[in-house]
Amino acid sequence: MSGQVLELARAAKEASHTLAVVTPERRKEALERIAGMLESNAAEILAANAADVELAQGLVERGELSTATLNRLKLTAQKLAEMVGSVRATAELPEVIGKVLDRMELDAGLELEKISVPLGVLAVIFEARPDAVTQIGALAIKSGNAAILKPGKEVEQTATVLVGLIRQALIEAELPAGAVSLVLGREAVGELLGMTESIDLVIPRGSKQLVQYVQANTRIPVLGHAEGICHIYVDDAADAELALAVIADAKTDYPSACNAVETVLVHRGIAGEFLPLLAERMSAEKVALLGSDEAAALVGQGLSPVGEWDTEYGDLTLAVRVVADMGEAIAHIHRYGSGHTESIVTADAGHAERFLREVDAAGVYHNVSTRFADGFRYGFGAEVGVSTSKIHARGPVGLDGLTTYKYLLRGNGQLVGSYHGKDARAFTHVRKMS
Amino acid sequence: MSGQVLELARAAKEASHTLAVVTPERRKEALERIAGMLESNAAEILAANAADVELAQGLVERGELSTATLNRLKLTAQKLAEMVGSVRATAELPEVIGKVLDRMELDAGLELEKISVPLGVLAVIFEARPDAVTQIGALAIKSGNAAILKPGKEVEQTATVLVGLIRQALIEAELPAGAVSLVLGREAVGELLGMTESIDLVIPRGSKQLVQYVQANTRIPVLGHAEGICHIYVDDAADAELALAVIADAKTDYPSACNAVETVLVHRGIAGEFLPLLAERMSAEKVALLGSDEAAALVGQGLSPVGEWDTEYGDLTLAVRVVADMGEAIAHIHRYGSGHTESIVTADAGHAERFLREVDAAGVYHNVSTRFADGFRYGFGAEVGVSTSKIHARGPVGLDGLTTYKYLLRGNGQLVGSYHGKDARAFTHVRKMS
Repeated sequence: MSGQVLELARAAKEASHTLAVVTPERRKEALERIAGMLESNAAEILAANAADVELAQGLVERGELSTATLNRLKLTAQKLAEMVGSVRATAELPEVIGKVLDRMELDAGLELEKISVPLGVLAVIFEARPDAVTQIGALAIKSGNAAILKPGKEVEQTATVLVGLIRQALIEAELPAGAVSLVLGREAVGELLGMTESIDLVIPRGSKQLVQYVQANTRIPVLGHAEGICHIYVDDAADAELALAVIADAKTDYPSACNAVETVLVHRGIAGEFLPLLAERMSAEKVALLGSDEAAALVGQGLSPVGEWDTEYGDLTLAVRVVADMGEAIAHIHRYGSGHTESIVTADAGHAERFLREVDAAGVYHNVSTRFADGFRYGFGAEVGVSTSKIHARGPVGLDGLTTYKYLLRGNGQLVGSYHGKDARAFTHVRKMS
Repeated sequence: MSGQVLELARAAKEASHTLAVVTPERRKEALERIAGMLESNAAEILAANAADVELAQGLVERGELSTATLNRLKLTAQKLAEMVGSVRATAELPEVIGKVLDRMELDAGLELEKISVPLGVLAVIFEARPDAVTQIGALAIKSGNAAILKPGKEVEQTATVLVGLIRQALIEAELPAGAVSLVLGREAVGELLGMTESIDLVIPRGSKQLVQYVQANTRIPVLGHAEGICHIYVDDAADAELALAVIADAKTDYPSACNAVETVLVHRGIAGEFLPLLAERMSAEKVALLGSDEAAALVGQGLSPVGEWDTEYGDLTLAVRVVADMGEAIAHIHRYGSGHTESIVTADAGHAERFLREVDAAGVYHNVSTRFADGFRYGFGAEVGVSTSKIHARGPVGLDGLTTYKYLLRGNGQLVGSYHGKDARAFTHVRKMS
C-alpha cells in the first residue's frame, strides 16, 4: 500500500473528527468560501478543463473514449456557474447533524439520547463529470464528513484544480484541508477499497461497469446501484390512455436514466385491446418494441424477440410481455427486476393496493411514471445517489444517507449490577419524545 | 454450489414474500403455535440435546471443545421453558412492519409514503447455543423475515429437532415452512456467504473468530461486532468514589461481555490521588491491573505491562493509562477503541458534554457503566445484536434492525415530463407528518 493514500486516509479521518464537532454555521461558511473561490478562479478551472478535453479528444479519435463521455467532461462558463450555484444551494439545505432522533428515560436520572452524526470518511470514485467533485465535496462538508475523491483519468487536471481550490477555501475557513482530498491513478482505487478501517462509505459515480467493479471488490459499504430494471404492469382494469402516457414518459423522458422503464407487463385480459395501441404509440415515439410471439400476434406485426428479461436497454428500446394475472407480473418483477422502481397502471384501487403491498422494490408506484424516483422530486433537496441495497438507505438517498447515529447516556453513577439479581431495580423506559 | 442450499435459499426468498404481506396477527399466531409445539415436544428436544452433549463431552475430553461451550450447549427443562417464554414474549412485541415512516405530497394528487418492510432473508451462523434457533427464528417471523440457520457441529442434533418443530408449526399456521430452514456442514457457510442475491443480512452469533471469519468472507451486510474494546476516562474533575464504582461494575458485572471495560484512562491531574484507590479496589475485586511505568509509580507497586492497547481481555484484567488531558484520552479511544461504548466520569458538566460530542462510538456515556449498552436495557424489548458498523444499525439493535423501507407513490397519471422544460409544473413538497 502506498504511503500517499494511507496518509490521505489518516488525514481524512482526523479531519472528519473536526468536521463532526464544528458548528453548522462554520460548515456553511466553508461552503460559501468554496463557492467564492470557484468563481474567482474560473479561468484557471476552465484552462485545466480545456487541457483535459484536448487529451480526451485524442482518445475519442482513437476510439478509446465515447463522445458522450467527452461531452460530460467539457466545462463551460455556464456549467461552472451552475456548479457554484449548487454548492451555495447545498449550504442552504436544512442541517442533518446533531438532530435528536429519540430520547428515553431508562430510570430516574438515567437518560438515553439518540442523535444523528456524520458517517466519517467517504471515498468517491467517479468518471468524467467535473461537477461530481464540487457536488459530493459540498454534500460531504454540509453533512460533516470528509471525502477522498478519485477521478477518472480523463478528468484528472480539472479535478486537481477543483480540489486544490476547495482545500484552499477550507484553510481560509480554518477547517482542516484534509477534509477533501484527491487521489490519482488506477492503483489508488484498489487501495481505497481495501481500507475498511478508515473509510466508512464508498460512492461510485459512473458507468454500470464501474459500480459493479466497486461492489465486487470491497467490504466497505457501497452506496449505489449497478442497474435499474424498472417495470410497468398494465392491469386488466387499466385506463389505456393513462397507461400509454405513463409508459411513454417512463421510456422517453430520459432513456439512459436508471429509473426509465425497460419492460411493460400486460394483463392478458386487456392485451388484445392494449397492445396495438402501445405499438402505435411506441412507433410514434420512435421506440423499438421487443416482444414474445404472443405479443406480436396481438400487435398484428412482427416484433424482435427479447434476449434476456433482465436487460437494461438504456435507450429507446422497450420489451413487452403478456402475463396471465397480477401474480405472474409480480413473480416476473421479483425474478428479473433490480429492486429499483416498479409501477402499476390500474383504475381498480384494490388491485393497486395489492401491487403496492406485495412488490418488493425501493419504489412501488400506482398510475405514475417510474421516472419520479429521484431525490429532488421526492423533496430531499439534494440527491446523494440511488440505492438498490436494502441496508442503510434504499431508493433515492438524500443528505441524511451520509449520516449515522450515536447513543448518548447521561447518568449519575448508575451500575448495571443494581438492575439484576436480588432486589433488582426496574428500568422505567419512558419515551421522552413521540 | 450444492443444489440443497440453493434450493433452501430460493424457498426462503419465496417464503419471505409471503411473510411480508400476511397480517401481524397471523405472524403472532405462528409464534404462539411454535411455543406450543416446543412445549409439547420437550422430551424429543431434550433427547436430541443429550445426544449432542454426549458427543461434545468426548470432544472436551480430547481438548477439542471448551467446557464453557459444553455448558452453553446443554439444555435443561428450565432452559427450555425460558426459550419458550422468550418466543411468547417476542410474539407480544410491538409490530415493526407497515409503519408509515414519512408521508409527503409531491403535488396535488401525487403522494409519497415511506413504510417499513422486512429485509427479506436472514442467514444466521451460530455456535453452541440452542436458544439461538428459537430466538432468531422468532425475531425473524415477528419481523416478517425468512431465516436460514447454520448451527455449529456441536449443536446439530438439537437444532435439527428445533427447526423441524418450528416448520411443523408454520405449516399448521398455514405459512410456508421455507420461512425457517436449516443447513448443516462447513461447506454450507461458504455457500451462504456467497449468495448476495438471495440473502439480505448475515447474523453471526458466536466467538470473535466466527464473526471475523464471516465479516472477511462476504459482501452481504453483516450485523455483528467482532470486538468490544470499551474505555472509561476518569477526568480530573471526577468523583473518585463514583469512578471506582462505575469501573468495578463495568469490569466485573460480566467480564466476557462485549460491553465490559478493558482500559481505564486517567487524567494526570487526578492520577496521583486516584490510582492507589483504583489498585486497592481492583485488588479487592480480584481484577489484575496492567499499566505503564508511570501508572505503576503512582500506584506504588509493580504493574504488569500492557501488551497491546487494543486487546479485549474478556476476563478480570484491566489496563490503565495516565493521559495528559481529555484530548489525549479521546485520541487514544479513537486509535484503539472498537467504536462500541465509551464512558467519562466527571463532575464537570462542560467536560462531559465535550466528551459526549467528540467521541465517535456507538455509545458515549457520562457517569455510568459501559455495561448499559444492551437492547433490553435500552428498552428495545429484544436485542437482535450489537453493531459496531456505522451503516444501517449502530450499537444495540432491536427488532427494527431487521426492517428496511420502501417508498409508495400514488398518483393519477402524472408524468415527469410535465415538471421540466417550458411551462414546467412545480412540486409542492408538503410534508404530511412531522
